[in-house]
Amino acid sequence: MTKRLSDCRVTVVGLGLMGASLCMDLVQGKLCREVRGVARRAETALSAFFTNAVDQATTDLHSGVAGADIVILATPVRTIVDMLAEVGPLLWPGTLVMDMGSTKGDICAAMDELPHHIQPIGGHPMTGKETAGFESAEPGLYKGATWVLTPLPRTSQETIDLSLELVHAVGAKPVVLEPRRHDKLVAAISHLPFLLASALVHTVDCTGVDDPTVWRLAAGGFRDTSRVAASDTRMFMDILMTNREAVLAQLDTLDNQLHELRALLANGDEAELRAKLTHSQKLRAEWKKD
Amino acid sequence: MTKRLSDCRVTVVGLGLMGASLCMDLVQGKLCREVRGVARRAETALSAFFTNAVDQATTDLHSGVAGADIVILATPVRTIVDMLAEVGPLLWPGTLVMDMGSTKGDICAAMDELPHHIQPIGGHPMTGKETAGFESAEPGLYKGATWVLTPLPRTSQETIDLSLELVHAVGAKPVVLEPRRHDKLVAAISHLPFLLASALVHTVDCTGVDDPTVWRLAAGGFRDTSRVAASDTRMFMDILMTNREAVLAQLDTLDNQLHELRALLANGDEAELRAKLTHSQKLRAEWKKD
Repeated sequence: MTKRLSDCRVTVVGLGLMGASLCMDLVQGKLCREVRGVARRAETALSAFFTNAVDQATTDLHSGVAGADIVILATPVRTIVDMLAEVGPLLWPGTLVMDMGSTKGDICAAMDELPHHIQPIGGHPMTGKETAGFESAEPGLYKGATWVLTPLPRTSQETIDLSLELVHAVGAKPVVLEPRRHDKLVAAISHLPFLLASALVHTVDCTGVDDPTVWRLAAGGFRDTSRVAASDTRMFMDILMTNREAVLAQLDTLDNQLHELRALLANGDEAELRAKLTHSQKLRAEWKKD
Repeated sequence: MTKRLSDCRVTVVGLGLMGASLCMDLVQGKLCREVRGVARRAETALSAFFTNAVDQATTDLHSGVAGADIVILATPVRTIVDMLAEVGPLLWPGTLVMDMGSTKGDICAAMDELPHHIQPIGGHPMTGKETAGFESAEPGLYKGATWVLTPLPRTSQETIDLSLELVHAVGAKPVVLEPRRHDKLVAAISHLPFLLASALVHTVDCTGVDDPTVWRLAAGGFRDTSRVAASDTRMFMDILMTNREAVLAQLDTLDNQLHELRALLANGDEAELRAKLTHSQKLRAEWKKD
């Protein structure tokens, strides 16, 4: 018999920005039978309960996941990997286990070690903020966002369908990908921008040591280009360490691109430099126009 | 006798984003005696006139600047340099000539060639948008923005005072700098971010050639980090070509920073990588908090 989201008890483990925002959508939209939240800190669990972000809250992983139809892990990536081993034996047969981590290779490998009666599927909503934590959570965060799903070979069609129902229910747009392909693509559009932003802040800091006025002049160009450098370091450490090869490959491509731009500028090759800048100008201006 | 802004006929040459926004502030705030706009295209001149962005509009530089007390050049940098030579002999003695260009070295050198009875001063409001042109102009653009002024040795105190009055009148915050110092600082916080953004778009494009899904996954991190790549290419060509040495030096510093991050990631040196990312996280999060 096919499960519907409206029949499901959903447990979200990790009540940071991503997990708590999902809970809020589920509760406010009455999208499922019950929403349970598991937080590391008692304060967060209490805040989530008393602001009606969840129906029930606990700091105890074991009682939190007991009897759940859907368990969603929304902690930093390496905590998800560790937690999968712990949580597996506690779950009912047929339980759907999804995660919200930003890399999928290591997580899906750990998911494949779950007992055979568990139904795992990787998940990654492509949205976020520089501010982390429960305080930053908000309903509607996933509206219009791309939400990648990475099924395993063992993932049943029913599990994929129920996952798609969840993604659609919060207004997101599902994209189904193989885990390693996901990791390669997000290395380019998410992990590389983070490292670039960090390198930019460090570079401005080098000038700022001698001449702090540089920080007063910094305006929109610096603000936007460096914004993701303010993201949660712990989250990004896990992301980078679980996607090293793909990130290093993107860094090398970027290095080539920057050196090409540098050479054109150094040689005063205006025609080629203009052509290259015009190409990226057009690509960026046309992105998401259709 | 000291001139006040309210007594002045102001001519703005170039009715793009920067020039037209300034005209709108001057006209709507009744900040000066008259605002004349000089546009390259008749269409722009007519639009500016019929939307009351200016009191008078023309496509003729010579009649546009005739009799002005203040002339503000708001075209791309190299056009400003060329125009300074043309405009010098047309101006009344004592006319204040300012510009709004993004680099100051070449412009201030050209300003120093103006006839001795002209009063030049460099200017650079630190604000903008990715969209260029008269259509993007808006009143209030300069509110709260830093506006750099670069006086020449020949610039009188009266000229500096009148320039400060203008900057304050549109709600901007003046910072007085020597031209070469300005150019070094903006290379770090404006020209470098532009090249980084362009290199990022090209890098994603490299992945996108094989797997266009990458563009669908791109979200906030890519959006912000790449935003300035959509800026006007012509404007940035002039900026880069008139600030090559400073930009190349910043590119080299960035290159070092990126290689350091790359090495830490490749070697799995988590402690050092975390320390470095935490430092940029803090710097970026604290920027402009005070």
